[in-house]
Amino acid sequence: MSRPLILVTNDDGIVAPGIRALVDVAMTLGDVVVVAPDSPQSGKGHAITIHEPLRLKKVNPFPGIEAWESSGTPVDCVKLAKHIVLKDRPIDLCVSGINHGSNASINIIYSGTLSAAMEASLENIRSIGFSLLDYSFDADFEPAKPWVRHIMKFMLARPFQHGQLLNVNIPKLPADQIQGLRICRQADSRWIEKMVEGRDPSGQPYYWLSGAFLNSDLGNDTDIWALENGYISVVPSMHDLTNYPAIESLKGLENTHNF
Amino acid sequence: MSRPLILVTNDDGIVAPGIRALVDVAMTLGDVVVVAPDSPQSGKGHAITIHEPLRLKKVNPFPGIEAWESSGTPVDCVKLAKHIVLKDRPIDLCVSGINHGSNASINIIYSGTLSAAMEASLENIRSIGFSLLDYSFDADFEPAKPWVRHIMKFMLARPFQHGQLLNVNIPKLPADQIQGLRICRQADSRWIEKMVEGRDPSGQPYYWLSGAFLNSDLGNDTDIWALENGYISVVPSMHDLTNYPAIESLKGLENTHNF
Repeated sequence: MSRPLILVTNDDGIVAPGIRALVDVAMTLGDVVVVAPDSPQSGKGHAITIHEPLRLKKVNPFPGIEAWESSGTPVDCVKLAKHIVLKDRPIDLCVSGINHGSNASINIIYSGTLSAAMEASLENIRSIGFSLLDYSFDADFEPAKPWVRHIMKFMLARPFQHGQLLNVNIPKLPADQIQGLRICRQADSRWIEKMVEGRDPSGQPYYWLSGAFLNSDLGNDTDIWALENGYISVVPSMHDLTNYPAIESLKGLENTHNF
Repeated sequence: MSRPLILVTNDDGIVAPGIRALVDVAMTLGDVVVVAPDSPQSGKGHAITIHEPLRLKKVNPFPGIEAWESSGTPVDCVKLAKHIVLKDRPIDLCVSGINHGSNASINIIYSGTLSAAMEASLENIRSIGFSLLDYSFDADFEPAKPWVRHIMKFMLARPFQHGQLLNVNIPKLPADQIQGLRICRQADSRWIEKMVEGRDPSGQPYYWLSGAFLNSDLGNDTDIWALENGYISVVPSMHDLTNYPAIESLKGLENTHNF
């Protein structure tokens, strides 16, 4: 049987240590092709580039592995990988990351890492976004690797299901302190933002986004609970944003005789 | 009783005709403040700006209405509006749009218009994204206006519900041909992309995103069905991306004795 074809991407850029860790693991399971941004793209969400052209350049950061860097967003990278680099060859698995920093809970909607994975899942490709709860460039990805491999193997063995992707977050812990893995729901949290005000060298005002994460969802079935208790969190996620319970309660809006 | 405070934003930029139509309607219902991008931001999804500072400038495109333009994304605009422009005064309603072009179905995840609205809903602000199925600069927003007003009035009168936003799409039809309004679910569709290849003036290759919308979800409870049948579609949407039905089927992944 031929080896599975695994597409690797990220949002921290092709030189980030996290993508190297993911390539290391993916190489043990299949044929790997990397298409990743040429610069950091954190916080880009599901952005796509429509008003300007994209660049794509073959590079060689991972010996023996086909790799390309692009000027686009993480979502653009998945589109370029599918249509240009792989010329519509079937991709068995797309993995995105390993992100430097959490993408648990509400972070999923801001995350380039997870948006790239979602784009692949829309294209009917099994898809996983991985993140380590350590923002530093020197983060230690070694404890994460066996877990990343376990989850990738599980997904490759599983029959494909439309639109399903996994949002995997890994606590910053030594290997022997990781408690295991939990299938979770997305905690209902948010950021309490602060806009830091300043003056540039010419005296003009600027505003710079800052903030603190606030979780008020205390369920023990959430990703935040799992991470705070030493577990790896796995949230099955999807692209259908419909708020089904609200449909019935809005039916009154269909009554438009009164305007 | 004091008039409601209504925040208006968009992703086509503060000079787009669609935002003017939305301001016209909002003025009849409350006190209006506009904070919108200074340039087109279509396709920006839920992007936020974290690696550079934001600019914010008072402008006067709508006589008598406080308006600001920002260098940031639509989501950045909502954050600037809340924290800088309105200094955390309670906002009763955030409306985003009227977008030039559809944000129905899967377009919601790429849409700056809807991401701005979702950002407001995360901040516990009632929130609506409006889009007209007409990409042209000269689109006629007049037939949409009474419907936009009806929906805004309905939401202002409704008790606030956490995390709820409406994705409203309006067909490109004369007023007397709009059939009414339907509460829908998001159709499960996608884009069939094409990367247009070219050479720039210096001979270097580029790739430019293009594509066609493909809907294979034929349910008559979807937004696409409503729009194709002359109705305005209203999809209650939310920020929880958990794929709840998949949780049980992934429990096997928690068994990690085998690695």
